[in-house]
Amino acid sequence: MSPKALDYESLNENLKKAQYAVRGELYLRASELQKEGKKIIFTNVGNPHALGQKPLTFPRQVVALCQAPFLLDDPNVGLLFPADAIARAKHYLSYTSGGLGAYSDSRGLPGVRKEVADFIGRRDGYPSDPELIFLTDGASKGVMQLLNAIIRGEGDGVLVPVPQYPLYSAAIALFGGSLVPYYLEETANWGLDVADLRQSVAHARAKGITVRAMVIINPGNPTGQCLSEANLREILRFCYQENLVLLGDEVYQQNIYQDERPFISARKVLMDMGGPISRELQLVSFHSVSKGYWGECGQRGGYFEMTNIPPRSVEEIYKVASISLSPNVPAQIFMGLMVNPPKPGDISYDQFVRESKGILESLRRRARIMTDGFNSCRNVVCNFTEGAMYSFPQIRLPPRAIEAAKKARKVADVFYCLKLLEATGISTVPGSGFGQKEGVFHLRTTILPAEEDMPEIMASFKKFNDEFMEQYEDHRGYSRM
Amino acid sequence: MSPKALDYESLNENLKKAQYAVRGELYLRASELQKEGKKIIFTNVGNPHALGQKPLTFPRQVVALCQAPFLLDDPNVGLLFPADAIARAKHYLSYTSGGLGAYSDSRGLPGVRKEVADFIGRRDGYPSDPELIFLTDGASKGVMQLLNAIIRGEGDGVLVPVPQYPLYSAAIALFGGSLVPYYLEETANWGLDVADLRQSVAHARAKGITVRAMVIINPGNPTGQCLSEANLREILRFCYQENLVLLGDEVYQQNIYQDERPFISARKVLMDMGGPISRELQLVSFHSVSKGYWGECGQRGGYFEMTNIPPRSVEEIYKVASISLSPNVPAQIFMGLMVNPPKPGDISYDQFVRESKGILESLRRRARIMTDGFNSCRNVVCNFTEGAMYSFPQIRLPPRAIEAAKKARKVADVFYCLKLLEATGISTVPGSGFGQKEGVFHLRTTILPAEEDMPEIMASFKKFNDEFMEQYEDHRGYSRM
Repeated sequence: MSPKALDYESLNENLKKAQYAVRGELYLRASELQKEGKKIIFTNVGNPHALGQKPLTFPRQVVALCQAPFLLDDPNVGLLFPADAIARAKHYLSYTSGGLGAYSDSRGLPGVRKEVADFIGRRDGYPSDPELIFLTDGASKGVMQLLNAIIRGEGDGVLVPVPQYPLYSAAIALFGGSLVPYYLEETANWGLDVADLRQSVAHARAKGITVRAMVIINPGNPTGQCLSEANLREILRFCYQENLVLLGDEVYQQNIYQDERPFISARKVLMDMGGPISRELQLVSFHSVSKGYWGECGQRGGYFEMTNIPPRSVEEIYKVASISLSPNVPAQIFMGLMVNPPKPGDISYDQFVRESKGILESLRRRARIMTDGFNSCRNVVCNFTEGAMYSFPQIRLPPRAIEAAKKARKVADVFYCLKLLEATGISTVPGSGFGQKEGVFHLRTTILPAEEDMPEIMASFKKFNDEFMEQYEDHRGYSRM
Repeated sequence: MSPKALDYESLNENLKKAQYAVRGELYLRASELQKEGKKIIFTNVGNPHALGQKPLTFPRQVVALCQAPFLLDDPNVGLLFPADAIARAKHYLSYTSGGLGAYSDSRGLPGVRKEVADFIGRRDGYPSDPELIFLTDGASKGVMQLLNAIIRGEGDGVLVPVPQYPLYSAAIALFGGSLVPYYLEETANWGLDVADLRQSVAHARAKGITVRAMVIINPGNPTGQCLSEANLREILRFCYQENLVLLGDEVYQQNIYQDERPFISARKVLMDMGGPISRELQLVSFHSVSKGYWGECGQRGGYFEMTNIPPRSVEEIYKVASISLSPNVPAQIFMGLMVNPPKPGDISYDQFVRESKGILESLRRRARIMTDGFNSCRNVVCNFTEGAMYSFPQIRLPPRAIEAAKKARKVADVFYCLKLLEATGISTVPGSGFGQKEGVFHLRTTILPAEEDMPEIMASFKKFNDEFMEQYEDHRGYSRM
């Protein structure tokens, strides 16, 4: 009998091609070890609450009340909830017709989309139109919706930074398109050189690929760099000249750990440029409640904002969003709260500021501890994590380790990360899952383990790395490296 | 300059082909009218809370506590929450690592998947394996994941009932496959005839299409029929003979309004059949927290269970689910609560039973009021809503109405439904959005408006319909119809 539709050999090939290393071999092995009772430190994915970060109190109070609206009439409600949380819950419930249990419009609740537009307007200094903002179940879902609209077949290419967050490579494979890589320069603190971009596009075109869009991740994932205003201007001009849609993944905009280059949105730079480019360049920007000092990953809330996208295309994107009926409504409330946090004078303001500053300042210290820890190993070099939630050190592996990996039929950094996992319980993602230059190896770890655990984790990494090097290094001389 | 990637003419054609009438022209017009201040009764989508259905208290208490876990330590918590809700919240939080703010495994929380497996085991009398159950953001997302795995290109066909829920036609178009319709027989209470199925497959094959899968919706949407055990056995045997995956959309399994044919799952019938078919037929079954007496649409919770799917394919489906990281966690808790509701003796048991029975019994009465109301119009015939949440009356339109529609460049049932909307505020979906035989017209409405409003709504419908007929009927004699 011929194979059945869900037999492996008969599945959609694009599905099989998609790779997603963040939950790949390393994660699966870590899950097994955890089942066997080993203590695992999951630093494979930016999942702050899983590593002990406490949720912000005020938003949780508001959403809890929205889930249990019958409490709003209870005379005892004030014993458990502050008055501003009660008022906010009523405010958000007034945006819904039927509370959290009713589907919203497929683009999200109009009231929340208005609050997002106001936030963007304040942030950028240019008004934003709620009709061009769609709420989504996390930013990933929005990215996938847009890539699905852009990619018509394998002749369509999307410029993606390498190293990159594998959502992009996976989604492009799933939709049957072609990934066109552009390399970030590690020695220039993961900088983006527009001359390289031109070369990447030329290479792709020579292969018959129509390059349709470009992805930037700012701050970078896994690389942590923050793009300068001048660099963003160059990128925008490049996209305009090359007729590319720019997809701006800006989910880490609150996660900045240096003062030289504060976050600036691609949209603001575009508007500042003025002229035809500001009215013609197609830009879609993504944001999320999963990152920042919120870390509400499990709620799955995000949005995208469209700039210069023709109304008919917006309608098509709306139509496709409608097939899934609506993004989950509780996370829409979280998004409203994120863009509209407590204000000075509100009962919960001081607590909110204390909690959020505490998280961000600790992340900044952890970024430093981690970078320094990696750089204290003689075969490891690591750029400082300027933003986002990751450290992406380069691990210089001796030839004998690379040979041993080959014998074990593993990519060398997978081999290294598996050994690290078995020895220490630290679950990372090999650099090969993000893309890297030939013969160079990295790993990605989040900077999210609790600050008090950080010194021990870095010591445990260093000890493992020293032993690994001891085992595989050619002792006849370091110069061979 | 050539078009940009997000210009309409340059979008992915599959995206443009996808149609989703439930949120189509009628819904958009209704939203406009609502903005202008008209009172709209949204019966276009099965969204019970939007029409006043109250959420069940106990599950909302549990999820509210999971959102605000700091309340669990508050000495006053017992003033607002019963002890069993507090215990349940602790129970579900123990399934997570990091509460609702942490991504879960991409298949969902193992603890909840175990509770789902136990529920299926109790329901069907055959054990179910949690490793083959994936939690999803509503059933729609699961259906899309599976269709994406099955469809490789336009040569791949999926058998879909007509009339059908347009999720199927839209998703098949989006993934670039071919919909192979099989007609439900209106005069046989929307029954499914296996001889017709064979004919549909033969037709498709003659056109060079490889039919890979078959969809059943039981109870039916929009048609409301409940499949008998004998009919399910025939369908399973047919899929086995024809080497088809069966996708069983069973989201309305709690919504049954007659006693002759209680819900029986495709999986139970398959297991009862025994022999090679029970070990080889590939079946995927879908369920949701959005329907039943829960109606928690806005939470976006669902699951699918795979039967006889090879482990390597399960891994691929897992990998693709991982790209979106995890279904939203609060809805996973709702799913746990749905499959594991309060038990006799629990503090909240009586209230839970009172609330859920109240909703179901009222739905049963509403199904009757609506069917009778439609059948009291001389040009309308309507099968009784045996299950699900919809009424799907056939509207016999006079030739002059069909001509008038043609002049207005509308499909005749769209024309009729638009007039109904303008006159009464009742927002329905034209039958053409679900598929129907040539020259026959329907509309779909939910049975969800509040029971006390039902007589007025049906009177308002009847008045509109009488006036419409008055306007368009040929008064020289009814026999012309």
